[in-house]
Amino acid sequence: MKLRFSVIGGDGRQEKLARMLAEDGHSVTVFGIDAGRLPKAPSLGEAVRDAQCIVLPIPVTREGGLLNAPRLQEVYTMEEVLGFATPRQVFVGGKVPQDVALLADKNDITLVDYVEREDFSVRNAVPSAEGALQLAMENTDRTVFGSRALVIGYGRIGRVLARLLAALGARVSVSARKQEDFAWIEAEGYRQLDTRKLEGKLPEFDMVFNTAPAMVLNEKLLEELPPACLVIDLASAPGGVDRDAAQTLGLKFLWALGLPGKMAPHSASAILRDTVYHIIREKGVFL
Amino acid sequence: MKLRFSVIGGDGRQEKLARMLAEDGHSVTVFGIDAGRLPKAPSLGEAVRDAQCIVLPIPVTREGGLLNAPRLQEVYTMEEVLGFATPRQVFVGGKVPQDVALLADKNDITLVDYVEREDFSVRNAVPSAEGALQLAMENTDRTVFGSRALVIGYGRIGRVLARLLAALGARVSVSARKQEDFAWIEAEGYRQLDTRKLEGKLPEFDMVFNTAPAMVLNEKLLEELPPACLVIDLASAPGGVDRDAAQTLGLKFLWALGLPGKMAPHSASAILRDTVYHIIREKGVFL
Amino acid sequence: MKLRFSVIGGDGRQEKLARMLAEDGHSVTVFGIDAGRLPKAPSLGEAVRDAQCIVLPIPVTREGGLLNAPRLQEVYTMEEVLGFATPRQVFVGGKVPQDVALLADKNDITLVDYVEREDFSVRNAVPSAEGALQLAMENTDRTVFGSRALVIGYGRIGRVLARLLAALGARVSVSARKQEDFAWIEAEGYRQLDTRKLEGKLPEFDMVFNTAPAMVLNEKLLEELPPACLVIDLASAPGGVDRDAAQTLGLKFLWALGLPGKMAPHSASAILRDTVYHIIREKGVFL
Amino acid sequence: MKLRFSVIGGDGRQEKLARMLAEDGHSVTVFGIDAGRLPKAPSLGEAVRDAQCIVLPIPVTREGGLLNAPRLQEVYTMEEVLGFATPRQVFVGGKVPQDVALLADKNDITLVDYVEREDFSVRNAVPSAEGALQLAMENTDRTVFGSRALVIGYGRIGRVLARLLAALGARVSVSARKQEDFAWIEAEGYRQLDTRKLEGKLPEFDMVFNTAPAMVLNEKLLEELPPACLVIDLASAPGGVDRDAAQTLGLKFLWALGLPGKMAPHSASAILRDTVYHIIREKGVFL
Repeated sequence: MKLRFSVIGGDGRQEKLARMLAEDGHSVTVFGIDAGRLPKAPSLGEAVRDAQCIVLPIPVTREGGLLNAPRLQEVYTMEEVLGFATPRQVFVGGKVPQDVALLADKNDITLVDYVEREDFSVRNAVPSAEGALQLAMENTDRTVFGSRALVIGYGRIGRVLARLLAALGARVSVSARKQEDFAWIEAEGYRQLDTRKLEGKLPEFDMVFNTAPAMVLNEKLLEELPPACLVIDLASAPGGVDRDAAQTLGLKFLWALGLPGKMAPHSASAILRDTVYHIIREKGVFL
Repeated sequence: MKLRFSVIGGDGRQEKLARMLAEDGHSVTVFGIDAGRLPKAPSLGEAVRDAQCIVLPIPVTREGGLLNAPRLQEVYTMEEVLGFATPRQVFVGGKVPQDVALLADKNDITLVDYVEREDFSVRNAVPSAEGALQLAMENTDRTVFGSRALVIGYGRIGRVLARLLAALGARVSVSARKQEDFAWIEAEGYRQLDTRKLEGKLPEFDMVFNTAPAMVLNEKLLEELPPACLVIDLASAPGGVDRDAAQTLGLKFLWALGLPGKMAPHSASAILRDTVYHIIREKGVFL
Repeated sequence: MKLRFSVIGGDGRQEKLARMLAEDGHSVTVFGIDAGRLPKAPSLGEAVRDAQCIVLPIPVTREGGLLNAPRLQEVYTMEEVLGFATPRQVFVGGKVPQDVALLADKNDITLVDYVEREDFSVRNAVPSAEGALQLAMENTDRTVFGSRALVIGYGRIGRVLARLLAALGARVSVSARKQEDFAWIEAEGYRQLDTRKLEGKLPEFDMVFNTAPAMVLNEKLLEELPPACLVIDLASAPGGVDRDAAQTLGLKFLWALGLPGKMAPHSASAILRDTVYHIIREKGVFL
Repeated sequence: MKLRFSVIGGDGRQEKLARMLAEDGHSVTVFGIDAGRLPKAPSLGEAVRDAQCIVLPIPVTREGGLLNAPRLQEVYTMEEVLGFATPRQVFVGGKVPQDVALLADKNDITLVDYVEREDFSVRNAVPSAEGALQLAMENTDRTVFGSRALVIGYGRIGRVLARLLAALGARVSVSARKQEDFAWIEAEGYRQLDTRKLEGKLPEFDMVFNTAPAMVLNEKLLEELPPACLVIDLASAPGGVDRDAAQTLGLKFLWALGLPGKMAPHSASAILRDTVYHIIREKGVFL
């Protein structure tokens, strides 16, 4: 079924998304971005009112709670944006602030934060893990094959990354904290470590990837690593590696954030597009 | 650290477990079973009192709530068994009835049901999935390589089974119900189906494995399957396949329960042993 | 393109092949076998003369150099069979004796021995390796996952078998004799051993598969194996394991020959059918 | 056993090799390169005479048939180098010219060209394939997961590369020319194409890797590729892709040579070191 989309605000990711939706045959209008031949709505009101699905940017707002639309001269509050909503529409966006979510809720507006969706996170684990793998390839002078790699944390990214490393022939250890994760790590054939008991275990690694959202690699642990070891932190701020200590110790250290968009922007946009479709299928009163 | 174990009641699985514990150097007494050279306790009371860890059978009780010890002439209530408990012991057993759990709780006895533990289930997913694979190999006249296989359900067993089938070169489809599972199925590279919308999708399969704990393959769906298709139901009672319809339709059908113990008893016992060790490490006041 | 086939002599494998060729829409006549509704040629002469491709059995001849057609009362020499040949035909068969090959050659008859073809052997490595895996599953009380497996020889079957075992989570060692094989074994991520220097290396294995066509596992080496070790010999006669010694030592030993036909007859016949098609495409003067 | 090595001429690869040999405890002298603390021989004569194994560079000679030692002021003919040989030595080097090989042979000098060794090539297939994978990751805006990849040629690098791509979740097609290769491609689970019949098959690919040492991707075939397709040629000169046509068509094209040394120099040197050890074990009269 062909739908009417408005893609509003944001950056190149929104532009790419708008083009992908149009390639699928949907009618797409943009506002606050420039997506080649796609028509621009003359005003925010028209952009919002005429669409069945309004795609807001990631993050939805910038400082001051204003709509995140850096390419526009004008500024808009989220009250203004949602004020143009008409019945049976679906709004989607990334990192929706709580007050905006409440505002939508109070006005019976369907507003879905895709960043909160488990399926979006799972799908992004693939480009994240591939991105981490690419960084490791670029920043070592050895093959992944035969390398001794440690993945800290066995969440979504840890799970995919461990699989990729093993598939390339690395000797993979994974550390976790839960009995269930230990069982899975074992069932997948990796060596299993306890994230809380890494002392004395680190001198043997060629590359260490942190995916756990907590300070794990403190100075004491970093000191154990061999000087040629590569450390890649995939945890969002504040990160799981003592960066100052890593620098002082002269370790090769990378803090890798937003890998999908940086390393595989096409796939990142395709994942976002598919997630929008899934949301519409679930919520879409107009379908 | 060497511990004193009592292994009480049950069948060959308990005997094997007792021997494995002894092989690890622990002091092991048995009661109600016969494990070769291992000493038998002269009475239930001595069996329970003298041990640090008491391993009850699976299931812990038989009809009437009595201790499951078919090789004994005498019968014992669980009140009697737990009545011999002394401080700082750990009791473990499989499928502990609720009243027994309450009784233990009321008397401050540590009694852990390993069947309820997620890590036990995950570890058993490997022998379950291997067992299902072996059954499929035995009951088809073709290689798994190149076969078109459907795995219904993406829980623990579904996840391991899909991986094994793919590793052997089957073309694997997995059906599930949750967006998150869909995302994982895709991320692992399988074809993804919706368990609620299997109509019209089944004529192409050579083998179908049900792991979902619900009636999925009703008569209507079974009718779609090609006559040579093998159907293996891994769901515990009441199962997920209409067995009467499968029989009427002349399909090759297997209801495969308790696969770890049947297909790989050594590994099943080793998993149980390791789970007992994990429980002791978590609960063991005597450590 | 639809062709005229005659399938002559042999056993159930030829009957299955005849049916598969017919299912692909070819015109198929049989002689000396019974393949359901497929028409039987009234005589050997008509069977041979009227076909574009004549499929002889495996082996082509039985003792005395006669056509291998045990279901016939009459006996035929290969001179008689080839005597009915007409121009532009293709004869295929398995294990063609040298004198028969010479006879065909002298009379300008295209006669191809599929057993000699490398692609036939490679394709059969898959059902052979799967069959060996199935035997190992059936004859051990443990999962392949976690087992320590040794594959002796890194030819076609060794290569596929090692991959299957590793995919299921076995810890795989492969022994070979050539530097090139050592390099491949390493590149695929297996532990590498020298087939000529296995002494002292065997006590650690749970399962050993011999694929090398030579006596490798003599009494001295067999004595090293743990008593519970499973030994499967995949080498054709005279085999690579000292069977008497294995029996005396009480080892679990299987000599597994003709695995594709026994464990996956459908796939074995499909491989034969595809090989016949490849031969016709290469040789078929009538195409 | 500890040996006396001389590492003579060449570039950074020889220096790295010299250091690796020293790390293994061997006595290492260098000539014509600078490897940190390792002692330099005062003259070519002493460098050659005192060693058990002399490691010549790759390529052994530069224009004029002179020893390839760009960091030296002086020039040496290969006659001079080999003139210092003493009995029971092993010379190794890469790309030994035929006249040098003949000269060594005539003087009963053991001179082995490691580039000619099959095991050296197999081991290098891993860093070559990983390097190609890394280039593909760096030069596309999508994940390898889900990409449609074509590998042309199923030699050593093709075999490893196809496996890596499939392990990362690409949909892999492999093209070859031989029936045996077709059978292997099929047995490994890839889609199989004929390198001689690629017409009409190319519009669907996201990335194409040529490993065949022949002009395959001519202008006509390149025209079929989608504009966003990445083409990586791994064939040594003259390569297998019409580079002018690729440029004219605006395709993203990379001619990737010497990948092991460029992308994973440490692993490349380790492979060379291990090959030297293998050669010594086979040839070493002094062992």
